[in-house]
Amino acid sequence: MSAKTKQQRPKARVAKGFRDIGPEEVRGVKRMMRVIEEVYEAYGFEPLEVPFIEYTDALGKFLPDQDRPNEGVFSFQDDDEQWLSLRYDLTAPLARYVAENQQALPTPYRGYRQGWVFRNEKPGPGRFRQFMQFDADTVGSASPSSDAEVCMMIADTMEKLGIARGSYVMKINNRKILDGVLEAIGVAGPENEARRMTVLRAIDKLDRLGVAGVRELLGKGRKDESGDFTKGAELDAAAIDRFAGFVDAGASTRAETLKRLADLVSSSERGRAGVAELAEMSMLFEAAGYGEDRIKIDPAVVRGLGYYTGPVFECELLMEARNEEGQLVRFGSVGGGGRYDDLVARFTGQQVPATGFSIGVSRLYSALKLLGRTEEGKTLAPVVVLVMDRERIGDYQRMVGSLRAAGIRAEMYVGTSGMKAQMKYADKRGSPLVVIQGGDEKAKGEVQIKDLMLGAELAGSVENRTDYKEARLAQFSVPEADLVTAVREALARR
Amino acid sequence: MSAKTKQQRPKARVAKGFRDIGPEEVRGVKRMMRVIEEVYEAYGFEPLEVPFIEYTDALGKFLPDQDRPNEGVFSFQDDDEQWLSLRYDLTAPLARYVAENQQALPTPYRGYRQGWVFRNEKPGPGRFRQFMQFDADTVGSASPSSDAEVCMMIADTMEKLGIARGSYVMKINNRKILDGVLEAIGVAGPENEARRMTVLRAIDKLDRLGVAGVRELLGKGRKDESGDFTKGAELDAAAIDRFAGFVDAGASTRAETLKRLADLVSSSERGRAGVAELAEMSMLFEAAGYGEDRIKIDPAVVRGLGYYTGPVFECELLMEARNEEGQLVRFGSVGGGGRYDDLVARFTGQQVPATGFSIGVSRLYSALKLLGRTEEGKTLAPVVVLVMDRERIGDYQRMVGSLRAAGIRAEMYVGTSGMKAQMKYADKRGSPLVVIQGGDEKAKGEVQIKDLMLGAELAGSVENRTDYKEARLAQFSVPEADLVTAVREALARR
Repeated sequence: MSAKTKQQRPKARVAKGFRDIGPEEVRGVKRMMRVIEEVYEAYGFEPLEVPFIEYTDALGKFLPDQDRPNEGVFSFQDDDEQWLSLRYDLTAPLARYVAENQQALPTPYRGYRQGWVFRNEKPGPGRFRQFMQFDADTVGSASPSSDAEVCMMIADTMEKLGIARGSYVMKINNRKILDGVLEAIGVAGPENEARRMTVLRAIDKLDRLGVAGVRELLGKGRKDESGDFTKGAELDAAAIDRFAGFVDAGASTRAETLKRLADLVSSSERGRAGVAELAEMSMLFEAAGYGEDRIKIDPAVVRGLGYYTGPVFECELLMEARNEEGQLVRFGSVGGGGRYDDLVARFTGQQVPATGFSIGVSRLYSALKLLGRTEEGKTLAPVVVLVMDRERIGDYQRMVGSLRAAGIRAEMYVGTSGMKAQMKYADKRGSPLVVIQGGDEKAKGEVQIKDLMLGAELAGSVENRTDYKEARLAQFSVPEADLVTAVREALARR
Repeated sequence: MSAKTKQQRPKARVAKGFRDIGPEEVRGVKRMMRVIEEVYEAYGFEPLEVPFIEYTDALGKFLPDQDRPNEGVFSFQDDDEQWLSLRYDLTAPLARYVAENQQALPTPYRGYRQGWVFRNEKPGPGRFRQFMQFDADTVGSASPSSDAEVCMMIADTMEKLGIARGSYVMKINNRKILDGVLEAIGVAGPENEARRMTVLRAIDKLDRLGVAGVRELLGKGRKDESGDFTKGAELDAAAIDRFAGFVDAGASTRAETLKRLADLVSSSERGRAGVAELAEMSMLFEAAGYGEDRIKIDPAVVRGLGYYTGPVFECELLMEARNEEGQLVRFGSVGGGGRYDDLVARFTGQQVPATGFSIGVSRLYSALKLLGRTEEGKTLAPVVVLVMDRERIGDYQRMVGSLRAAGIRAEMYVGTSGMKAQMKYADKRGSPLVVIQGGDEKAKGEVQIKDLMLGAELAGSVENRTDYKEARLAQFSVPEADLVTAVREALARR
């Protein structure tokens, strides 16, 4: 091959920040999503599929990094010069959908969506530019009962997925309370919007940076390990103390937390409204029997997105996992959401109150894997029927057909290599057993069944090699007519 | 609202060529895909999920309209100036995947993928820029047995989906035979590649243009209804006749068709090889009991894509449907595929033989709908518990909880409107029944159950209004403790 031809060949590599997903994860995620779906359906939510591509202006820009222009979103121009973008979440397209179809939809509209979203961000370890979300939203209700339902539904979902009570917690808070605190320290009004967002993002980083880091971001600013400086909200020490008190107001009961929060924002009408909403939600939790072990009020939960206007939620898994440095840490958030009353109004000018929750599918799947909950219902690799005599593939095809007809996952080797390569193939597939019929077996009207896993075990253990019964199970012959029964029995033995 | 603010508002509209998909189709497609999955799994294929975005050079351009530069594919530049594209099918990413992971994969590798693909084309009625495919491929085998398996698997899939034998047919052919005919008329060699593609595309349009139209495209060219002229392959009359004979060579048995094809390409080694491959496939079909009623050889099937190198397949549904002009026509193709031995070699330089099939998911779903096969397993709309007294939503929440716990799809009305709007809501949702507990019922310890469908029927029929028993079923009260049982019974009555 000449150097020139070689240069012209494209390199086979997955694009930066993207990944291929193998059989185990594809199947596991699918099983997991079916469970989530069942819960959402039981709650009366209806499925919807929104397109991957929307007009850029329809999506808007509500990502945490919206201050960096041209980042966050993959965009391109259409033939007619209009800008199109790949969806970066499933909330912005929902707002567009509801605004466009309001007349046809019931009010409130309760829907769920699942699918891939895209972020044009710098990829990092475990940080991809394509990831999956599973959302549920209620649009058209200002009632805290719709927020409460979402929270209870997520709690139910966790338990249906096999995450025990006590291993997860739904944390809730209310943006209006945060606004109340901001008002109390004099950072109200439209002229302070950017500053409020800075405060919001600072608090949102509490988990990662700790109290000291957040205090820096609330004050002058913070220099990170790499030396990069992030400008702070420039609050004075008294204001920062007040925030520290707010973030720390979580008590052991919802009632007590509500009391502390009410005290903190007593001077702000908006703050009091926020506390009242949380109180109504709490009442519903009590009525439906969702205790503090499932849903608690945590003032440190604020959510980084700009569009939330009321209650905000975060679902945290409490079991421990090793982080990149090998330390044991809480698994952490697998999803979040909240009330966004202004997103539909962007289009219509009319406020349409809405609330919802978004599950990070890959993160939740990782958690289930860590808990060993992804093993159930695993698919067995297929039985492989070897091609011993190329002239007789019609016969092998018939054998495979009879196995499949009996509900056994099976395949005839469809490559062109010899016996040794075929055994290697079955091995690589993880096949439980292979079916062999060479000339000798054919003459006797028999087929040979070779149990690959048992065979591997026997080969690994010298003592057992002499165990006649075991060895007989690892490789044995049966009349051709008994093929299906024998394979079924051999599979049942594991 | 000032005119200026109004102008700044984005319009809520789905992007041109895209669409939202409602509950019925989302659920129906999901059920359909589960059936396809089960068949593919039974055949031993493994799932894989490839990313939506790939390096443009890795995808290559193999669309039928590859002669129009910058069309067909949505592309954009990454931060590092590299070009990225949205996948336009699931075959090009598979070739990249196999080339990148060859060492880790078994040979042959048998995989299936499902998902959205994107075409940057002019949208038309029923023609979208985002659509779903469901592919299965065997990579690493040159044996016609791998082609045959794909064909039998698709036939099985159709029947598992409820499409009766005789209502579908897998049509197969071989590109090598077409090449043989081209050789015989002197259009061989690399210098004639463009001309061969023109011939290919002409034959591919047989369904749409009929014999006369195709003859024009094989000759000087063709002017369509809009007056646009498409340049032809410039074959002479004798060559065109020869093609007409080839396309028409299909007989009532595979054996007879093979004989005719063998005669047509007897002078070409490549043509003979193509016939031999089809003969081996036919032998396997016979052995496995797949008769002419399921899989037949049709020389008119050529497939428009440039990358096919051997057997090509098309699955056609034979039942009739109305076209855009209201005429009854055959439903037509729901998928196609074939052998593409050079796609992996684009990356590695080494030929890796491969074959596969792609189902057009939306088209297949439309067909199932037409056949009335999408009704099974339909999800019932939720029972709605009305909020009669806002102070008592805790009670209503408990009722909903007990219904859900009993496996009944149910929701409490979470909006803020009154009784009339709530009934309208339940109606719009298509709820089978609503649960009502106002002050009177509460005092008596009862709940009222209103059967909306029965109620609607009664309202429509004057005679029945007096039917006491019926009316009693349409609206009745039960003790609160019997709520779940009564709702279950009312649902069972339909």
